[in-house]
Amino acid sequence: MIIKFREKTIQQDIDFLREYLCNFGFEVHETNGDAYTIFSIVGDTTRFDANSLYAFKFVETVVRIQEPYKKVSRKYKTTDTIVDIGGVKIGGNNVVIIGGPCAVESREQIDLIAGLVKTAGAKILRAGAYKPRTSPYSFQGLEQEGLILLSEIRKKYQFPIVSEILSATDIPLFLNSVDMIQVGARNMQNYALLKELGKIKLPILLKRGLSNTIEEWLMSAEYILSGGNDNVVLCERGIRTFELSTRSTLDISAIPVIKKLSHLPIIVDPSHASGSWEYVESLSKAAIAAGADGLLIEVHPDPEKALSDGQQSLKPERFAELVTHCRSIAEAINRTLK
Amino acid sequence: MIIKFREKTIQQDIDFLREYLCNFGFEVHETNGDAYTIFSIVGDTTRFDANSLYAFKFVETVVRIQEPYKKVSRKYKTTDTIVDIGGVKIGGNNVVIIGGPCAVESREQIDLIAGLVKTAGAKILRAGAYKPRTSPYSFQGLEQEGLILLSEIRKKYQFPIVSEILSATDIPLFLNSVDMIQVGARNMQNYALLKELGKIKLPILLKRGLSNTIEEWLMSAEYILSGGNDNVVLCERGIRTFELSTRSTLDISAIPVIKKLSHLPIIVDPSHASGSWEYVESLSKAAIAAGADGLLIEVHPDPEKALSDGQQSLKPERFAELVTHCRSIAEAINRTLK
Amino acid sequence: MIIKFREKTIQQDIDFLREYLCNFGFEVHETNGDAYTIFSIVGDTTRFDANSLYAFKFVETVVRIQEPYKKVSRKYKTTDTIVDIGGVKIGGNNVVIIGGPCAVESREQIDLIAGLVKTAGAKILRAGAYKPRTSPYSFQGLEQEGLILLSEIRKKYQFPIVSEILSATDIPLFLNSVDMIQVGARNMQNYALLKELGKIKLPILLKRGLSNTIEEWLMSAEYILSGGNDNVVLCERGIRTFELSTRSTLDISAIPVIKKLSHLPIIVDPSHASGSWEYVESLSKAAIAAGADGLLIEVHPDPEKALSDGQQSLKPERFAELVTHCRSIAEAINRTLK
Amino acid sequence: MIIKFREKTIQQDIDFLREYLCNFGFEVHETNGDAYTIFSIVGDTTRFDANSLYAFKFVETVVRIQEPYKKVSRKYKTTDTIVDIGGVKIGGNNVVIIGGPCAVESREQIDLIAGLVKTAGAKILRAGAYKPRTSPYSFQGLEQEGLILLSEIRKKYQFPIVSEILSATDIPLFLNSVDMIQVGARNMQNYALLKELGKIKLPILLKRGLSNTIEEWLMSAEYILSGGNDNVVLCERGIRTFELSTRSTLDISAIPVIKKLSHLPIIVDPSHASGSWEYVESLSKAAIAAGADGLLIEVHPDPEKALSDGQQSLKPERFAELVTHCRSIAEAINRTLK
Repeated sequence: MIIKFREKTIQQDIDFLREYLCNFGFEVHETNGDAYTIFSIVGDTTRFDANSLYAFKFVETVVRIQEPYKKVSRKYKTTDTIVDIGGVKIGGNNVVIIGGPCAVESREQIDLIAGLVKTAGAKILRAGAYKPRTSPYSFQGLEQEGLILLSEIRKKYQFPIVSEILSATDIPLFLNSVDMIQVGARNMQNYALLKELGKIKLPILLKRGLSNTIEEWLMSAEYILSGGNDNVVLCERGIRTFELSTRSTLDISAIPVIKKLSHLPIIVDPSHASGSWEYVESLSKAAIAAGADGLLIEVHPDPEKALSDGQQSLKPERFAELVTHCRSIAEAINRTLK
Repeated sequence: MIIKFREKTIQQDIDFLREYLCNFGFEVHETNGDAYTIFSIVGDTTRFDANSLYAFKFVETVVRIQEPYKKVSRKYKTTDTIVDIGGVKIGGNNVVIIGGPCAVESREQIDLIAGLVKTAGAKILRAGAYKPRTSPYSFQGLEQEGLILLSEIRKKYQFPIVSEILSATDIPLFLNSVDMIQVGARNMQNYALLKELGKIKLPILLKRGLSNTIEEWLMSAEYILSGGNDNVVLCERGIRTFELSTRSTLDISAIPVIKKLSHLPIIVDPSHASGSWEYVESLSKAAIAAGADGLLIEVHPDPEKALSDGQQSLKPERFAELVTHCRSIAEAINRTLK
Repeated sequence: MIIKFREKTIQQDIDFLREYLCNFGFEVHETNGDAYTIFSIVGDTTRFDANSLYAFKFVETVVRIQEPYKKVSRKYKTTDTIVDIGGVKIGGNNVVIIGGPCAVESREQIDLIAGLVKTAGAKILRAGAYKPRTSPYSFQGLEQEGLILLSEIRKKYQFPIVSEILSATDIPLFLNSVDMIQVGARNMQNYALLKELGKIKLPILLKRGLSNTIEEWLMSAEYILSGGNDNVVLCERGIRTFELSTRSTLDISAIPVIKKLSHLPIIVDPSHASGSWEYVESLSKAAIAAGADGLLIEVHPDPEKALSDGQQSLKPERFAELVTHCRSIAEAINRTLK
Repeated sequence: MIIKFREKTIQQDIDFLREYLCNFGFEVHETNGDAYTIFSIVGDTTRFDANSLYAFKFVETVVRIQEPYKKVSRKYKTTDTIVDIGGVKIGGNNVVIIGGPCAVESREQIDLIAGLVKTAGAKILRAGAYKPRTSPYSFQGLEQEGLILLSEIRKKYQFPIVSEILSATDIPLFLNSVDMIQVGARNMQNYALLKELGKIKLPILLKRGLSNTIEEWLMSAEYILSGGNDNVVLCERGIRTFELSTRSTLDISAIPVIKKLSHLPIIVDPSHASGSWEYVESLSKAAIAAGADGLLIEVHPDPEKALSDGQQSLKPERFAELVTHCRSIAEAINRTLK
């Protein structure tokens, strides 16, 4: 942590802050420029709120130069984390495709799609039972009934399931029905929920919030890991920008950045990022080429009749083609896509 | 709703979509240009997901021209809503100042601040018991104990209280302790929470999410109103942009925009928006001049020792000055600030 | 400037960088943490490209803690700069209103508006002769003919004129016709143009680019001042964000931020920021309350027939009302609006 | 174009607008809902400023559903445009790599790099003679001398050259020295410059502005094509967002979006987008997988000593590796990279 004093700060204030910081156990090194003084602070500042120093009127700038996260950091654990989702491993050399509809709509619908996406090459089924919708008047999901249907499908097809949770009170239901719990973009900083998810062992798929920085995203993962659950997979799904030709802007750079900063696996959701089936294949190939550990793709046999997100869903045959094309990309970078 | 077909769409597809839309009860008007066909749809599209039409491959553009919200709209209710918070009215001609510390830290601290901010001109006390912190290692609030302290202060000073909730399971505790429940920026789209808050009658202070559009913000308010709770006050607290000299960018235009679109009152939080005590007064005056119904200001007698947000907290004497200056602005636009 | 080395950087590399920096004339102070080394650099880094240090593979983080600008800084000149535009002073205690149409359309039009806006309270006339339009098919301005009309109006009404320049080759024409040259948002980083404007003495109105930081804006002003022209007025006109209910997002915080960082005057253009006549008055009052030194308002007697920007132009009678209301705000903060 | 009237608009106003629009040669179709009227406008609205209709107080919403561009549109020309740069074709099945230093620094430097990048696989040399720098105190390029050095290198290595222009007055110099003129991000909306570039035939590399939409970018290309120069290559180089771990956010989706909307070729500049040599390879592979027609990569034999942008420059050996890896990706999608 670096602290720059305002010009003409009096010695008494400088001394006061030195003592204040030493009381936190930090080591303080002082540098004097022509016009101002700088403190370089050594010690573990993870638990210290650097911004709080701006409350001192004589402080001009505070710069944190240590990451605010710990357990998610590649410095803490240098080897790649591999997360096991009902027998499917995310984070190793193999690239994993997760597919499925936005929402469970009925037994027939989910049964049909499950069979189709498994045949087409998906290793994990994604389907929502609880849907966070912008409008209270939109379809909100089948809720508990949806989870029951998913657990049936899991057995029938031996297909690991991931589904989104909206409230910590539903955790017991999810533990019985799915292999991985998704935290959606809108709940990335729902800390009450993250704390509870840190207490279980089931893998968590943590989507990035629409306007959250990579650092904030890692801090949300830190909530889960620091609670005791190491099984976190990150999912980039687009950030909010001024550009309107796609629903969100897929931050493709997040892949190499996460690989540098953290040991956690990262997958990409091109369907939500673009909001349009026309762009999904192009973005899927880009994600794998950039180093993503997997993809999350919306598939629906009858997108026109989907109760939600039909505009970004691929038909199963197109999805199967996409898997084939992605396999070529994976092989071109010496990874597999089984 | 307007639908533009892709060029060279065949008649059969056009007819199919006409029938599809008529089955939803809409009236369909067709316009034929040189190269493409347009449908103008008449009827209540509030409950219809316009984007879903993009699933039809022959649809090029869908434009919703009706607001997706209903009960929060000024078209639904033309007169300004006034919300009563323990006897203090927000939304009328009087401008209301809410003040207090980021967090309840101890009985002594909250008792001291409550007395000071009341004397300085605040009509409602704001203080957090549950704190949503980016880092799991930061101070998380006194939680239940904080609420108990707040309810004591409420009695002692006859001071209405607003405090932030993080989880629907805490609603009963809040009902016993506070006069208004704050939904923070990070939970603006926590629909599980919003639904539960729609079932009570206590006023809700709904902060805008850091990257949420005004339309999404109004949709979140719609969740609460459509659930049965009409007592919603909106709070603009800055949006996330590329500019880094302030923590967020206060969207001052949100004030006249909300006043045009909705009947709900709107207040402004210049402390969180700017993240710096130096800019709070300037932004406070701007907010009132623009037409805000109130302000939410962080005050701390000893910002340097605050457990959170000290950098953006005003000392009580400076807060008192700010109230005086804001009163002059209020009077210049023919409002009062009592 | 602070430099943090990667963990386990070898001593040889640390020594190499120390010598490298000393060769630039800097003083280097070293701090050793448990896992890494920090350099605190003392000296004038204005002309040094801090980012270039990232080319050294052993450098993890470089933080510049000195402003990159010099002559525009409040540290360089502590008193407020006052710019004289044909006898009208911007930057003192008086708040100045600049008004006029988006474009000069004809002698009759500009003559009519000039009279109306002067009567209504504007002290400077703004009108475009060269128009930067997104579409090559839109009206591009009367160009040289427009400047000639403006110079006639200037004489007739004794009215100082500001107009936008698009190319350095037109500077001689502008010198003969106007009292202040506007650099539009799209040209804020047109350095070839800025350099030429630094060589003249005529006042420059430098608009902020749609996605430029305040620091970049000040750097563009630095181009002009470092070239020898101290007569710069800054103009905040909204930045680009994800919010779509207004055309741009007026960054009201830019006013107190600029006042803190720089001695240059700052005015606000609420017409372009909002893109809608309905919001102009609310934003104008906010800008003055926040401390702006003036306003730039679009006025047109017949907005429906304006060749550009009619949607954001006020009719003269509404503009006159706005001036009156803004005067009340100015007086409430102890400024004048004559 | 669709126009929605405000509720309760009187018949007289509706009739007035119908006639107004008919006078522009448009066909007007009227649809009446319960509460409001809609006009669907048929005809070529390319030259009509849709926003101007907001000047009519009875207009609530105007929606343009026709693209504002014409010659750059895929509807205007369905086949992919291929641009010839000194014999090298961009836009066909072959993926083209452009490499070189940020700036020409000396004859020795540019001669050395030219040889190295040509050997490593670059087909075009990029190097700047005129540098747009944020700071007036930074290295501004060798200017005319730099162009002369580039024309020498062009002859010596038979290497087509691309270099950035900052001012229309330099066009004659560029015509003599380079094979392609680059318009940088900061000048994407410098319309005075674009108009002049439309009058020549030399290929133009048009970079996307940091905060420009894809539509605005295509409109800037339209300026050049409508002027008579069809030889435009687009270059995505990252957009400005709130994310700070990379300098800009590479908008990878721009590739499939441009391919859908326009016939012009698109290349990607991962060096400027990320601002860090560590991320260049990952983003390069992603760009090709997504369908880009080429890459623009910064290469410097001695990045630590580069006068600009050293932090994002690859060493030649690493660049050679990158070319090899990109070739694998190109082949995986059935393209070549010769």
